[in-house]
Amino acid sequence: MRMYDIIEKKRDGEVLTKAEIDFFIEGYTNGDIPDYQASALAMAIFFQDMNDEERANMTMAMVNSGDTIDLSPIEGVKVDKHSTGGVGDTTTLILGSLVASLGVPVAKMSGRGLGHTGGTIDKLEAVPGFHVEIDKDQFIKLVNTNKLSVIGQTGNLTPADKKLYGLRDVTATVNSIPLIASSIMSKKIAAGADAIVLDVKTGAGAFMKSLEDSKALAEAMVRIGNHVGRNTMAVISDMSQPLGRAIGNALEVEEAIETLKGNGPEDLTELCLTLGSQMVVLASKAATLDEARQQLEANMKNGKALENFAAFLQSQGGDARVVEDVTIMPQAAYKIDLPAKTSGYVSGIVADEIGTAAMLLGAGRATKESEIDLAVGLYLNKKIGDYVEAGESLLTIYANQEDVEAVKEKLYRNITISNHKVDAPTLIHDMVTDK
Amino acid sequence: MRMYDIIEKKRDGEVLTKAEIDFFIEGYTNGDIPDYQASALAMAIFFQDMNDEERANMTMAMVNSGDTIDLSPIEGVKVDKHSTGGVGDTTTLILGSLVASLGVPVAKMSGRGLGHTGGTIDKLEAVPGFHVEIDKDQFIKLVNTNKLSVIGQTGNLTPADKKLYGLRDVTATVNSIPLIASSIMSKKIAAGADAIVLDVKTGAGAFMKSLEDSKALAEAMVRIGNHVGRNTMAVISDMSQPLGRAIGNALEVEEAIETLKGNGPEDLTELCLTLGSQMVVLASKAATLDEARQQLEANMKNGKALENFAAFLQSQGGDARVVEDVTIMPQAAYKIDLPAKTSGYVSGIVADEIGTAAMLLGAGRATKESEIDLAVGLYLNKKIGDYVEAGESLLTIYANQEDVEAVKEKLYRNITISNHKVDAPTLIHDMVTDK
Repeated sequence: MRMYDIIEKKRDGEVLTKAEIDFFIEGYTNGDIPDYQASALAMAIFFQDMNDEERANMTMAMVNSGDTIDLSPIEGVKVDKHSTGGVGDTTTLILGSLVASLGVPVAKMSGRGLGHTGGTIDKLEAVPGFHVEIDKDQFIKLVNTNKLSVIGQTGNLTPADKKLYGLRDVTATVNSIPLIASSIMSKKIAAGADAIVLDVKTGAGAFMKSLEDSKALAEAMVRIGNHVGRNTMAVISDMSQPLGRAIGNALEVEEAIETLKGNGPEDLTELCLTLGSQMVVLASKAATLDEARQQLEANMKNGKALENFAAFLQSQGGDARVVEDVTIMPQAAYKIDLPAKTSGYVSGIVADEIGTAAMLLGAGRATKESEIDLAVGLYLNKKIGDYVEAGESLLTIYANQEDVEAVKEKLYRNITISNHKVDAPTLIHDMVTDK
Repeated sequence: MRMYDIIEKKRDGEVLTKAEIDFFIEGYTNGDIPDYQASALAMAIFFQDMNDEERANMTMAMVNSGDTIDLSPIEGVKVDKHSTGGVGDTTTLILGSLVASLGVPVAKMSGRGLGHTGGTIDKLEAVPGFHVEIDKDQFIKLVNTNKLSVIGQTGNLTPADKKLYGLRDVTATVNSIPLIASSIMSKKIAAGADAIVLDVKTGAGAFMKSLEDSKALAEAMVRIGNHVGRNTMAVISDMSQPLGRAIGNALEVEEAIETLKGNGPEDLTELCLTLGSQMVVLASKAATLDEARQQLEANMKNGKALENFAAFLQSQGGDARVVEDVTIMPQAAYKIDLPAKTSGYVSGIVADEIGTAAMLLGAGRATKESEIDLAVGLYLNKKIGDYVEAGESLLTIYANQEDVEAVKEKLYRNITISNHKVDAPTLIHDMVTDK
């Protein structure tokens, strides 16, 4: 088999066999196939696409290129959730305990944040004492006990994906549905998921800006998952503005606690219930989405969801008193309001730019080496569709610096106010299942 | 400027500016731009094509990537001929003297053969004493004196093209009209041509198998040439069977001598007169193609063309007595006929396979390091459309080995005989000029 023939075949719109895809992924991972042939193939895939069979084979070839996590010692169906990334997305903090409180095992491998998107581990570390320095046996034991545990990236998972993504990133071949879908799905499968719920974001703050592209990506991932025996569903949710109201690590933990109590922002609560219902159904803990949702709402009201969160924090060294007293987390020295310059309806809050503003305050990392400030961030007092009086606070800046003029300016540039009434954007644009 | 943006732009079907193309070619030549980005761009060009302006800019960027030959000390319009490569293509040997005999200066830079195609220098070296070890000053002096001289590749011409072609060759991006056209034209322009006549071959033995593709390539090259101020014309000629009758070095020199005398094979003579007429017109030595053709035919009959050939050979050390006595060239030890197995009309002579058969005898190089045997080759006694009796000789094998069974077998596999009458293929499929 020759890589040349594989490139030529795909270039001419033909379907690659499993053997050919395996040959490419194995050879590229071990260095037998050079970057210049891999980038030519990636560009050919960009133009000629891959069919369902090829996408599934590509995904599994990347899974098999490295270590995989064996979650079989955990009882029950291990359901993982994946978000394509947004701003102020606190769902993972909430969802874990929400579904775990119904007995769904959540064995979560999480990362740290970069740029305008926050990382789950960073956020949890705002709770004093909390850490992810546990070994695999302890991780599995904790999931069997509490139904929820979070660890950092472990082992050499999907090295083919890492190498290929790095190459795509410098050759303008990132933006290809078969390549994005197989990249995401390979990571979830290597991390041991039996079933997967996908939260595909759409809008200005998302990787996929148009609903059409978001839907195509969601469908591609759902088909891959089901093709390789992982029950997969997707929700397409709005990211034209940040989700919820808090952006920043301690602020998002506080918001998560409020949401687990049933007092969270409407959009965040709704998305958690939507995604959570899918997870519960996939884990066979409820027969229908409606039934699952009722159980989840019940556990918000009766305190069981919050109870799970406290037990989870404590099991990984965290100070569980945080659920009663959020001030034990790092607090910002300054709370500065951003007053509206005119009266009207909030018509736009550009999610990624708002995320970058929070990063500039220290809530996120500009580079992998940056230190983050757990206390700082933003809290949106108004969201799209809300009426605001001139002088009223659009949002509150939580800062450890007095001078936030540059941040304010950036925020003003990215929040628009209209004379006319504006509707709040649709939160859940679509649900995708394998038909 | 970033290579990433250039790839993305072309990927999305946009037009690259001169500055962007220069940035790519310069950066790739000097190693600043890595192979993996160049191959991604080549694949994007494969799919998105380039417009006339881009193709011209690409050509000139490659010309400017290395040395260029200054032929200005040569009087008159320097017209170069380029063939896209075929089997038994003796035209260059004939055309040089044919048009030089009318005062058209021919300053020819030629190469050696590889695979099933022969090289002009190899062929000329069949003449005892002939060599191309002359310096540039001598070369120019010879063209001014005899109107014809041939040297080998000199200087570091179009290094960008060499590097890019090497990369395209292993990334399935050779077969792209804008890339092929700019590659060929850059080499001709760097070699100092004022005007260019292109012989684009079409058919089984050619690089471009279909007439449609051959025409597209011819049009692309003609447009590039005229865009950058080099008067360019193209002929699309048949390569479904070998051109002329001789394949092999000494055999082709003999055939060239016969053709210069006006006794050559019909197809070879016709193609030389067609290409030669275009060269004479481009050099402003005749007003019309018809007028040019009459003058060329006259110089075949009156001996002036052959006289020029003899003077040319002598000026580069060759034994000019060859024009009267071809046996002073290396002669093969064995002449073995290939008898037809059945009676009928010759319906196919697969050009590239016949070329490979000649190579197996030693007439061509399997690798760059192979030594060639100047004496051996093939002489076609029958061509497509000819009637042959069973047992009659289809062709004569000139060999320096007694056992040619393997070659015979290959030849039989690639010469077909039909019960029904077959027409000889059209020789000149089309002529392409810039409208």
